[in-house]
Amino acid sequence: MTTLSTITGSALSIARAYADGAFSARQLIEATLARIDAHDAQINAFTTITRERALAEADALDARRASGQTLPPLAGVPFAAKNLFDIAGVTTIAGSRVLADAPPATADATLVRRLCDQGAIMVGALNMDEFAYGFTTENHHAGPCRNPHDLTRTAGGSSGGSAAAVAAGFVPVTLGTDTNGSVRVPASLCGVFGVKPTYGRLSRHGTWPFVASLDHMGAFARSVDDLAAVYDALQCTDPFDPSCAQRGFESANARPGVLRVARLGGYFDEHANDDAREASQVAAEALSATHTVDYPDADAARGAAFLITAAEGGQLHMANLLARYDEREPLSRDRLIAGALLPAAWIVQAQRVRAALRRRVLELFSHYDVLIAPATPVVAPHIGDEFMDVNGERLAVRPNLGLLTQPVSCLGLPVVVAPMRTRDGLPIGVQLIAPPWREELAFEAARRLETAEVAYCPTPAFDAGVQ
Amino acid sequence: MTTLSTITGSALSIARAYADGAFSARQLIEATLARIDAHDAQINAFTTITRERALAEADALDARRASGQTLPPLAGVPFAAKNLFDIAGVTTIAGSRVLADAPPATADATLVRRLCDQGAIMVGALNMDEFAYGFTTENHHAGPCRNPHDLTRTAGGSSGGSAAAVAAGFVPVTLGTDTNGSVRVPASLCGVFGVKPTYGRLSRHGTWPFVASLDHMGAFARSVDDLAAVYDALQCTDPFDPSCAQRGFESANARPGVLRVARLGGYFDEHANDDAREASQVAAEALSATHTVDYPDADAARGAAFLITAAEGGQLHMANLLARYDEREPLSRDRLIAGALLPAAWIVQAQRVRAALRRRVLELFSHYDVLIAPATPVVAPHIGDEFMDVNGERLAVRPNLGLLTQPVSCLGLPVVVAPMRTRDGLPIGVQLIAPPWREELAFEAARRLETAEVAYCPTPAFDAGVQ
Repeated sequence: MTTLSTITGSALSIARAYADGAFSARQLIEATLARIDAHDAQINAFTTITRERALAEADALDARRASGQTLPPLAGVPFAAKNLFDIAGVTTIAGSRVLADAPPATADATLVRRLCDQGAIMVGALNMDEFAYGFTTENHHAGPCRNPHDLTRTAGGSSGGSAAAVAAGFVPVTLGTDTNGSVRVPASLCGVFGVKPTYGRLSRHGTWPFVASLDHMGAFARSVDDLAAVYDALQCTDPFDPSCAQRGFESANARPGVLRVARLGGYFDEHANDDAREASQVAAEALSATHTVDYPDADAARGAAFLITAAEGGQLHMANLLARYDEREPLSRDRLIAGALLPAAWIVQAQRVRAALRRRVLELFSHYDVLIAPATPVVAPHIGDEFMDVNGERLAVRPNLGLLTQPVSCLGLPVVVAPMRTRDGLPIGVQLIAPPWREELAFEAARRLETAEVAYCPTPAFDAGVQ
Repeated sequence: MTTLSTITGSALSIARAYADGAFSARQLIEATLARIDAHDAQINAFTTITRERALAEADALDARRASGQTLPPLAGVPFAAKNLFDIAGVTTIAGSRVLADAPPATADATLVRRLCDQGAIMVGALNMDEFAYGFTTENHHAGPCRNPHDLTRTAGGSSGGSAAAVAAGFVPVTLGTDTNGSVRVPASLCGVFGVKPTYGRLSRHGTWPFVASLDHMGAFARSVDDLAAVYDALQCTDPFDPSCAQRGFESANARPGVLRVARLGGYFDEHANDDAREASQVAAEALSATHTVDYPDADAARGAAFLITAAEGGQLHMANLLARYDEREPLSRDRLIAGALLPAAWIVQAQRVRAALRRRVLELFSHYDVLIAPATPVVAPHIGDEFMDVNGERLAVRPNLGLLTQPVSCLGLPVVVAPMRTRDGLPIGVQLIAPPWREELAFEAARRLETAEVAYCPTPAFDAGVQ
């Protein structure tokens, strides 16, 4: 029986095997659901399983295959989305109790629809920090999402369920979002590939927003080819998202030749412990990066993102916070209120810093195609940990897991996270940062790390017996 | 002697007469300076007269003409600039006592340089509201600028000196800036043509900023042809101003054929008294505009601009306000402090409103090329007036002279103001509003009003004997 090994394989191999008639979509989806049923109680990646929809889509696909019609490129690939993406018929809870009684979404989010149109099959919605404000998916309503490589550790966040579902082999690809690191932090801690494209690249239509000027859509996968295929499938111009740039399609598989790569030092070394710094050094060596360069005023970029996040998030939630404070996530409700009350002058200054730094950082890209930095300062902390040691400094875990991602997304740069491994065997990711609209450079760097077996998606420890 | 009548003529006629050898540039500049010396004590438009520079430039130009070299298009045209533009060797005071002891500018602002490069001759710096925060040029340090049509009345602001200098016939063209109406309000009250181009069109390099997300550079003239010539001369890409769009040159003289024109009703009728409303109706009739349309949520656009102005201005000035409060303009210092302390959530909401309204207003331009509205709710109030009657409502003068301009600049739309006349003979302007980057449409509408003698720049009353 090939099914079980297939479903923990890659999206593209599933699509190929399905097209070749190796199994039916119903068999595949039933096996996928069975695997989630059997193991997600341990992980807590899913908040909703769209069982009926998945089986109906599988049957429709099987009928299509039986009738001899051409199959779309992702035919049969099971996927799931962070629960802030609209899924028709499911209430979009965005991790919050206060949306639990909202009416179900009447249509899929644009990105969900894009994947389904290419034959992928939606199997459910995934756990996250409330309203995406957090880096640990310690959700007090849904319970924490656990790391498939060590169930006592966090999966990271806010797209923790999305990273964990891929790491656990429940589905080969998932959708997430990244405002300050919410794709890159869980990709790093769960040991999977992740992409946060250029700000404005992917449609946000049909998703619950957090910080309009920083929100990016993104995706997770267990291989670069899968991630590139999904990223390519997601690209579209969307009349419903006016902030989505009309760039046209630019493939992740453009395969540039020479890559000029540098490693980011300074801030990115200082705010990383040995595991993280070594991962970035190993990746740099594998990509023949001999230079270590400075990302100017990364701390100011991070500060700007921090303030803008608190203020825009606070503004968005203020009415609701006032009305339903007791039902809101204790880990973020007071931060949002404080953010809304920041003096306007601070936010003006933060936006000014952001614009000035963007110009300076873009200059780095006249010398380099890709910049390397760790994605997180540390490997996954234990669930409930309040503090962590970063290079000898004791820092609060929850705001600081994004220390190394926040300065990058603040400027809207595209990033692919590649999963590396520490000496202890736990995963940690590196950010491969490209200039705006040049995602293919980051993908190429990730592909080279994968080909050299420097980066790869490890088998989850919890599942060793099952494999 | 043609000199005196020539210098109150148009810029283009001066350039032609000079090229034809009708007078020397020295004669022209001496006559210009003599006229300013004789009459500006009444008007108070100038804060600095750059006598030596003007004469030196005149002599250089005369030498160039004598040697038979080709003359640039604005050769000999005297001009002046609001005192927030850098003029090499002059301290840029931006209307404020706190800058009076700053070192002199080491170079001209880009736009000053552009005009000088085309042969125009800089004769001085012009009065304004402190740091451009005001609509009346009642500057407590330099004294109020007076309206050439009635010396007891305000010239409007904040580019009051720029409008008054043109209205008084001191120079044919001047430079000003417009954040919320600071070109359009004084153009309306002084009866001159003015242009506030699309946000991002003209370089802001070398000018003292006020509100980065709303500041526009602009110009004043006594005819459409002069204004178009100056506007065309000012267009450039500027490596020193990264926010200056790289649009390339798009002439104001493109002369489109059919113009689809509509008059703005609703908010723009309600916040205008009879004089202003009638001016807009007369202009609409002259441009065959039969439709009256609604600018959606103009009050919200105005509110958004008001908050953003206070917050960005407050942020910019906070340190200085804390250090030198007593030296700051009493009419604006407390507003700036209050602005800096607004809750961040309000500014986030204001920017969100702005983005949403922009999309809605742009839809109007699928039906119309030009929208007409009064530029000010009333004719020039008397200097010192605290209140004015607008359509039966008693409103504070200083913040509300911009009632009709603020919703338009909030969205960055280009506007040409055309001077009309009330039954009492006082000037009042209409805004001719075009879609982004389509300044030529607004210029064409102004040209048609001028050709039909509906709009024209009246002879200043103070000067009746001199003419």
